[in-house]
Amino acid sequence: MKKIDVIQNILEANETIASRNQQLLDKQKVFALNIMSAPGAGKTSLILQTLARLKSRLNIAVIEGDVASTVDAEKVQSEAKAVVQINTRNMSESCSLIAAMIESALKDMPLDDIDLILIENVGNLICPSEFALGEHKRVVISSLPEGDDKPTKYPLIFTDAHAVIINKMDLLPHVDFDIANFRGSIQGLNPKAEFFEISCKTGEGIERWSSWVLEQVETNTSKK
Amino acid sequence: MKKIDVIQNILEANETIASRNQQLLDKQKVFALNIMSAPGAGKTSLILQTLARLKSRLNIAVIEGDVASTVDAEKVQSEAKAVVQINTRNMSESCSLIAAMIESALKDMPLDDIDLILIENVGNLICPSEFALGEHKRVVISSLPEGDDKPTKYPLIFTDAHAVIINKMDLLPHVDFDIANFRGSIQGLNPKAEFFEISCKTGEGIERWSSWVLEQVETNTSKK
Repeated sequence: MKKIDVIQNILEANETIASRNQQLLDKQKVFALNIMSAPGAGKTSLILQTLARLKSRLNIAVIEGDVASTVDAEKVQSEAKAVVQINTRNMSESCSLIAAMIESALKDMPLDDIDLILIENVGNLICPSEFALGEHKRVVISSLPEGDDKPTKYPLIFTDAHAVIINKMDLLPHVDFDIANFRGSIQGLNPKAEFFEISCKTGEGIERWSSWVLEQVETNTSKK
Repeated sequence: MKKIDVIQNILEANETIASRNQQLLDKQKVFALNIMSAPGAGKTSLILQTLARLKSRLNIAVIEGDVASTVDAEKVQSEAKAVVQINTRNMSESCSLIAAMIESALKDMPLDDIDLILIENVGNLICPSEFALGEHKRVVISSLPEGDDKPTKYPLIFTDAHAVIINKMDLLPHVDFDIANFRGSIQGLNPKAEFFEISCKTGEGIERWSSWVLEQVETNTSKK
């Protein structure tokens, strides 16, 4: 019980900082997306595709969360208006991005000049679902090779998402994945979620996704 | 700092229970493998392939760790000598199997009649690396569609593994994955790790893997 109390306190403290982050973002008219997935599902690829489509219309910053390394930050460096890398290190530190890390990253960003922040969480379907960051919308990416049972096995992260993406649609002929079964699971957990089928490799579905992102920014907090 | 102290205490308590689990397993001459990977990399498929190859030679039990659901336990039920499902629920409870869960599962198992326990950890490359369970060897599966940068991004779990498996080799023509780069990263982190390239779909590499498992059981704790 002791452990759960301590973690409960940590989660409550996190909520407080997350609210403060969101107030700052709202004041500065910056829209933030928290992008979550299992390792290797395509968070960085989605961010690169989103930058390619929208960087002429929006000033976009990226916060890269990784346990270790800066490989993802290096990939997006040349395309984003600003990039901050956060290394979460081991589980003893954190198995997810947490609001305090974002608070610190926001201090390093020229918020006056930014419309949209894409936050790449660490690759993990468990921990990120419990730590609000101050984001306006949460996006979960599943990829075809992971199998269609992920919503059943990791329900919380899918239940709380505003958008669910299936990536790597190009692999459909080569893997066993029942899209109807996956969509049925999402429908059961979270019928309001927006749903996208994309391939970051071929570009399939990226236009619809980018239009949705643009609409979110313009509806919510745009400076334009 | 407070948070880290508390988690340090939890990790130390876990080590104590893990040692007790391993003493019990050694006394009963049961060999245990802790199988870890990202979600959807093929832990259950590897267990099914291992059961198919070795169940005529060894009495094999399975412990299935999942956040939610019993879908994996149902898949292995007919092939294993005994199956125990553990649902870890949310991160507030645990983002990994922990030794106390295994201690409890071992009480439900006919250890006198078992040679090998395959423990399927939850799909997560971060938390399981810090919680010993009492296992004799640790196995990490990466799958080709995840990309070859996973050892760089999640180094601890690969550093502490006795065996590293690349699964889904059948997808090699369809994804970008540099096997030499992946192997080079493993070599840098953990040069002693055994290395296997397999496809649970086609059966490629499963014979060599099964022989390795059989050798571990026979060398270490076999009743035969």
